[in-house]
Parts: sequence; structure tokens; C-alpha cells
Amino acid sequence: MSDGRGTLYGIGVGPGDPELLTLKGLRIIASVPVIAYIAPEGGDSLARAIVAGHLPGGQTEIAVPIAMGEEAGQAYDRSGREIAGHLEAGRDVAVLCEGDPFFYGSFISIHERLAASYRVRVVPGVSSLTAVAAAAGMALASRGQALTVVPAILPEDALAQRLRLGDAAAIVKVGRHLDKVRQVLKLTGRGGRALYVERATMEAERVAPLEEIESAPYFSMILVPERGEGET
Amino acid sequence: MSDGRGTLYGIGVGPGDPELLTLKGLRIIASVPVIAYIAPEGGDSLARAIVAGHLPGGQTEIAVPIAMGEEAGQAYDRSGREIAGHLEAGRDVAVLCEGDPFFYGSFISIHERLAASYRVRVVPGVSSLTAVAAAAGMALASRGQALTVVPAILPEDALAQRLRLGDAAAIVKVGRHLDKVRQVLKLTGRGGRALYVERATMEAERVAPLEEIESAPYFSMILVPERGEGET
Repeated sequence: MSDGRGTLYGIGVGPGDPELLTLKGLRIIASVPVIAYIAPEGGDSLARAIVAGHLPGGQTEIAVPIAMGEEAGQAYDRSGREIAGHLEAGRDVAVLCEGDPFFYGSFISIHERLAASYRVRVVPGVSSLTAVAAAAGMALASRGQALTVVPAILPEDALAQRLRLGDAAAIVKVGRHLDKVRQVLKLTGRGGRALYVERATMEAERVAPLEEIESAPYFSMILVPERGEGET
Repeated sequence: MSDGRGTLYGIGVGPGDPELLTLKGLRIIASVPVIAYIAPEGGDSLARAIVAGHLPGGQTEIAVPIAMGEEAGQAYDRSGREIAGHLEAGRDVAVLCEGDPFFYGSFISIHERLAASYRVRVVPGVSSLTAVAAAAGMALASRGQALTVVPAILPEDALAQRLRLGDAAAIVKVGRHLDKVRQVLKLTGRGGRALYVERATMEAERVAPLEEIESAPYFSMILVPERGEGET
């Protein structure tokens, strides 16, 4: 860029299988001087693990700590300033994002802080949504069908309102909300054909009817097909 | 597979930019003896064009004709039988799918016909949904937000019912339904911040506020951010 500043890249590295990285993501990740990724304190970053086999070595790495509530805002502020420092110095920064950067990605919080001041390019990735459908062998939606994506963290009444529409639905990030989601599916008559998928495309991938599931990790999703004829 | 039959692959080749193909999609496409793709009569297949630079040559190619209404069913029946012939003979077949196979993909019609009889593997791809968000520089949905995906072909009242929820929305395959969609967005008070994107990630990509748009091709989408405070 003619202003001498670096470019901020948000790179979708896909749902977990390292082979689901795109050629474009791979090219950019291997060529930038700085990479950044979300990582739990003292733990490994899944996004970094996905691309580990392609890192050329010698890159500056920024681990953005996972935080909740008010602390999350402060953590993103700090990481945003660190990334901005590199951009000001003319260095491109690639933020590695599990799945797709703009589909429930933590990149959104970084983008909010830097997009007004810096040149940003987002490289879309294979999202958990399509990865889960592929794992389940179940279409998300076809011609003329609507699709509702709802995070399991929503309150029971908000979930129920959307599920009552009868559209195909994907309930994302089930985790500790499993019991509530199961209850709402029962209440709305949508649970009968629900399929549960955890860790799609990863080694520990699991696909099962919802009724067989007793607990769910964060990386889990429930797919519900469009309400069929005769279902209420 | 021990039964001597071939495997049917549904490969998401991404939204248009050949660099948005995944490593896995590339590996399988380059290794199977038979590829298939949707193509308009006498015209070029977009899915084939996306991967053209990676085809090794010497593969058998099956062009599945685009058809509408009753003829579509018959066309898929014929193509399904042709694909099945190769699978019976032990040859793997990769169906090239624009975007993702299970997100409004024509692969769904082939899958319906063959999944009960043959081994099927779906390789998810970068969908038009995340490609459009990347092009627009606009997040689809973040933590705690629901996302509604609605095909523009839906009747006006069905579109309005879903848009009134106030969730972030993506209206897909706008094309000749542009006027109807604009009308419904106005009616539901959701048009003010709508962004229009056509041919995301392709050379002719275009991003503009909806109000500036006069006509739309089939490959077009409208993104509507979640209803903000103060909006009705």
C-alpha cells in the first residue's frame, strides 16, 4: 500500500482438518512476517495447529488470549494495539481463524478495532456449518428452503421462536447448553430428526442422533432438517 | 471399498476464485478417473472453470445439464444413472460443486439419488455465504446473534416473516427477485443498512449499497446486519 502501512488479513483456516485450508490462505500465511491467533492461556491454539505444517519459521507470533466478559474487551484492545504496531511499521499481519473469520469468529472483535484505520482483507474459509453438514451427510438447505442459524447461548424463548418457523436449522456451539437445546427441540416438535455433530473434520469427529448424546463440547452443532409434511 | 464399487465425492470448489479451492478438494479432483459438473447447454461450467488449471487431463467428464421444473428431475435421473455406471465399475467420481455441495448445491439432487446405494464423501468448500461477507467486509454473525438465510425465491410473506425477527440475514440468489426483495426490506424496515454483493471473489465482483442496484444476476446476495437499537 502506498501509505507504507501493512495489511491486516483475516484468514479462515477451516474447521479442523489441515487439508481444508484454501490455496489462498496457505499462500498468505506462508508469506507474511507476522501471524496472530486466539489461544487459551498456557494452551495451544487450534487455528495455529491447523496450519502448523505450513509455517515457514521465523515469523513473529501474537497469541491473543481467550477471555470472557469485560476482560475480553480489554484483551482485544491490547492485542489490537500490538497488531496495529506491526501494521504501522509496514508489516502485514495474518490473523488465523478457525472456520471462517466472519462466521462467529473472534476475528470480528479485532476487525471492529482496526478496520477503520487499516487496510483489511478477509480470506473466507470452510466454515463449521458446511463442515458439519458434510460430516453428517445431510444437506443444509436446498432451493426454496430457508436456513436458521442459532447459537445455543440464546434464551429458551428466542430459540423456540426461531425453531417454530419450521425451517432447516443449525444450532451452533452447543456445549453446556445441551439440556436447554434438547428441551426447546422437544417443546417445538423439532427434535425427532435432529443430528448431533462434534469436532467435524477432526480426528475425534462424532456424528450421532441427538437422543444418544449426554454431554457436548464447545465445538458441537445440531442440525435439524426442514419440517416435513405431517410434522407439527 | 471392499465391495469393488467406486466412491462418489461431492467437492466444494469454492465461490469462484480458483485460489479458494481447498487442498483436499484439489487432491481428490486430480486423482479420480471421472469428474462431473453442472453445465448450461452448450455453455461452460463455472465449477469446471474454477478447477480447470488443476485437471490432469485424460479424465472422463460428465456434464449434468441445467434444467428446470419436471425436466430437472429427469435430467438428474439420467446423470445419476451415468454416474452410477462408473461407480458400479469401481471408478471413483468427483462431482464439482460451486461453493459448498450441501449449501443450496445442485449436488443435493444427485446425493438424494445415489446416497442409499453408494459410498459418498462430501468435501466441504468455501460457501458463497462466507465469500460474500468477506467481499463486503461485514461479519455475518457473532456470538449470541442468530443468522437467517433466505432464498429470494420465497414468497413475499415468507420473506417478511423471517426478516421481522430482526436477526442478521443473508438473502441468497437474488437475481430476478430483486424488486420483490427490495419491497419486503422496505416493508420490514430492514433495507437501510443492506449491502448488495454480486459474483463474490470473481473478477467481476461488485459490492454496493442495495439502493444503488438496478438489476441483479443469479449469483448475488444481500446482507442485512442484525437490527440495531433504535431501529424498528
